Amino acid sequence: MNASLNPFLEQAQVLDSTDPLNAFKAAFHFPAERLIYLDGNSLGPLPKKTRTCLRACMEEEWGTGLIRSWNAHWYGLPEKMGDLLAPLLGARDGEVIFADSVTVNLFKLLSAALPYQEGRSVVVSDELNFPSDEYVLEGLLEMTGRRHRVLRVPSADGITIDRGAYSAVLDGDTALVLVSHVTFKSGFLHDLKALTEAAHAVGALVLADLSHSVGAVPLKLEEWGVDLAVGCAYKYLNGGPGAPAFLYVRKDLQEALLPGLRGWFGSAEPFAFNLDYSPAAGMRRFLVGTPPVLSLRAVEPGIKLLQEAGMDAVREKSLRLSALLLDFHEAFLAPLGYRLGSPAKASERGSHLSLRHPEAYRINRALIAPLPGQPVVIPDFRAPDNLRLGLAPLFLSFTDVVEAGRCLAEIVASRDFERFANAPDPVT
Amino acid sequence: MNASLNPFLEQAQVLDSTDPLNAFKAAFHFPAERLIYLDGNSLGPLPKKTRTCLRACMEEEWGTGLIRSWNAHWYGLPEKMGDLLAPLLGARDGEVIFADSVTVNLFKLLSAALPYQEGRSVVVSDELNFPSDEYVLEGLLEMTGRRHRVLRVPSADGITIDRGAYSAVLDGDTALVLVSHVTFKSGFLHDLKALTEAAHAVGALVLADLSHSVGAVPLKLEEWGVDLAVGCAYKYLNGGPGAPAFLYVRKDLQEALLPGLRGWFGSAEPFAFNLDYSPAAGMRRFLVGTPPVLSLRAVEPGIKLLQEAGMDAVREKSLRLSALLLDFHEAFLAPLGYRLGSPAKASERGSHLSLRHPEAYRINRALIAPLPGQPVVIPDFRAPDNLRLGLAPLFLSFTDVVEAGRCLAEIVASRDFERFANAPDPVT
Repeated sequence: MNASLNPFLEQAQVLDSTDPLNAFKAAFHFPAERLIYLDGNSLGPLPKKTRTCLRACMEEEWGTGLIRSWNAHWYGLPEKMGDLLAPLLGARDGEVIFADSVTVNLFKLLSAALPYQEGRSVVVSDELNFPSDEYVLEGLLEMTGRRHRVLRVPSADGITIDRGAYSAVLDGDTALVLVSHVTFKSGFLHDLKALTEAAHAVGALVLADLSHSVGAVPLKLEEWGVDLAVGCAYKYLNGGPGAPAFLYVRKDLQEALLPGLRGWFGSAEPFAFNLDYSPAAGMRRFLVGTPPVLSLRAVEPGIKLLQEAGMDAVREKSLRLSALLLDFHEAFLAPLGYRLGSPAKASERGSHLSLRHPEAYRINRALIAPLPGQPVVIPDFRAPDNLRLGLAPLFLSFTDVVEAGRCLAEIVASRDFERFANAPDPVT
Repeated sequence: MNASLNPFLEQAQVLDSTDPLNAFKAAFHFPAERLIYLDGNSLGPLPKKTRTCLRACMEEEWGTGLIRSWNAHWYGLPEKMGDLLAPLLGARDGEVIFADSVTVNLFKLLSAALPYQEGRSVVVSDELNFPSDEYVLEGLLEMTGRRHRVLRVPSADGITIDRGAYSAVLDGDTALVLVSHVTFKSGFLHDLKALTEAAHAVGALVLADLSHSVGAVPLKLEEWGVDLAVGCAYKYLNGGPGAPAFLYVRKDLQEALLPGLRGWFGSAEPFAFNLDYSPAAGMRRFLVGTPPVLSLRAVEPGIKLLQEAGMDAVREKSLRLSALLLDFHEAFLAPLGYRLGSPAKASERGSHLSLRHPEAYRINRALIAPLPGQPVVIPDFRAPDNLRLGLAPLFLSFTDVVEAGRCLAEIVASRDFERFANAPDPVT
């Protein structure tokens, strides 16, 4: 294999040498070991500036400023970080706020949107949606005794969702479309613009989960007319483990929506301590409790890096990285039993590729704990047979991708995965 | 005044010299300025060990460990921190978990407890409860269309709640008692044991908000039979700004309760990605989304400091600090127009004292920005006239208390607060 690998390596070197995002890797902290990190879609790496930012928050703001830092630094932080992120979403100032987790934010938006759509009794989702998004919906419907039906559009191939199948079920009874913009397993990229048009045509709202698309593909929420969105900051935004999530509400909907989950940070006058709730104007009504400041402060540097790079450049490199990996797959991996678990068309993909293999779990183990002389490769394993390969353009090179492909091939070709033949089944 | 102050200063020095908790102040980072921090009840200071802990989390766990740290360090963190805290609550391993904010945790517990108490239609609370706790209840009832009545037991004096008044409204129709163990304004300490007995006598559950009592007074949730509790880690636990909150569910109730707010971290198999929800066993079902790891890691050192000190010693010093301040108030402050906004009886108080004064807002401004030569004193101002003085025993000395009292007196006696005569009205 080594000889025939040369054309790929050469191509990768050429691509690296002309890559306009080449310099961004140096903005991140990486371990000293030889490592190819293909899991930026699950937990992005640590931006070097985050160390400075978090130390300042801890030592100067908390340590020295104490309670005074609420006024000086923290009270407006949820909106400030929201406004910072807004351009990456194609949203305006005052349309985005950071708070809680993706799931809790979904709950807030669903609890506000369903009463707003009173009289409509169907929520449309699909089989490739992130399960937690379905849990939160089911929990909410159970709590409220709403007799909504949840229609899950099926996926014929487990990889894509046919847009026609979505349109076919939308009608005047559809309250809401709840969709993962990029699906978590296959990386399928919905056409959110078209889906929003179809939903609006029947008077339905669209609530998009952008967890796997923000920072990975260009977003134009305003242009597309998207009504509501949530998303995660610990993946491509590189905001840190369990970073607070964000939510977006189209400007003209904000005053019409009131979440059922309410707390003092979402009230008009949190420090008046009135026993009766009156919601804040704008996005602040979607806050609930005190935000986790240390974690929230850490989201800033990652967002700034993406803005500096520009989402068009990020998308372009992402497509090139995946094209290279797909060519490699065709040449070396498919013959070894790998098969593509992502859409074949580039326009239907986010920024991760799924490769499936019957031995995926043990291949994953071998990648993470390689034989001496080999690099550590960290993908993301999803049971039963799915290796998700996150192609985050800010820190991955084309050479990294070929090198990771080589490891994927060699572990199967040499049956190195058999080192883990007795490993217990995956638990998490 | 200076001459007559001497006996107080001498007494304080004696108390300091024999104070068994004297050494704990050195465990905290404080600014270089001369500062008396009376707001540990709002935001506790930075434990020095938190700097090490958070740096390790950021640089080693996130930076170097990357996604691998979920298995190695983070997945079990919510329970691990819960078990660490449990002894301070008088709870057992497996009864406490860290998650989200106080308000979101209240929502989860209320959404689980009210259906459990199906058939009972009254929630009993009181006028001194923290408003956010009322907001969350009202929002939940509105969402679910539950026709519960919320009875707010009145406070005759704005400072205490008569236990007889509580007992008088409890009956077989009471689903739940929702109570702030220590009230946020006056610092009134409910007799949670007696209240729980009275609630249980009519078959009602008790949900206690421990935000102002945890780390301030000894808690014996198990012994008292308390059913449910939530609390905050950024006050006396010194867990950092907006630190994740905790929740407690009595062991034998856990499997019977299912929150309406659900997400993947609370499911039995979060990484199986089933579209249908099945709740985790034990306290994990009260998790929802991914926890904010950086903020969560920061709660450990503060909890350990309190355990090292011992809650009986903490309470004893707290009572002595407040006795000294009350004596000082009697001698010097009451004659200047201050009046006590907290219960007179020590057994009815948490660890903060409220002093009210018509010029409280401007006095507060003068305390925070003192004249040259004077220490900075940071209390907590609550509109319209309330200075909350948090007496956190781990880092306050008796001399601090006398010194703060002296500043409170001098600012009024010299009318120094008039420096802020034109200050705009309080906004937060």
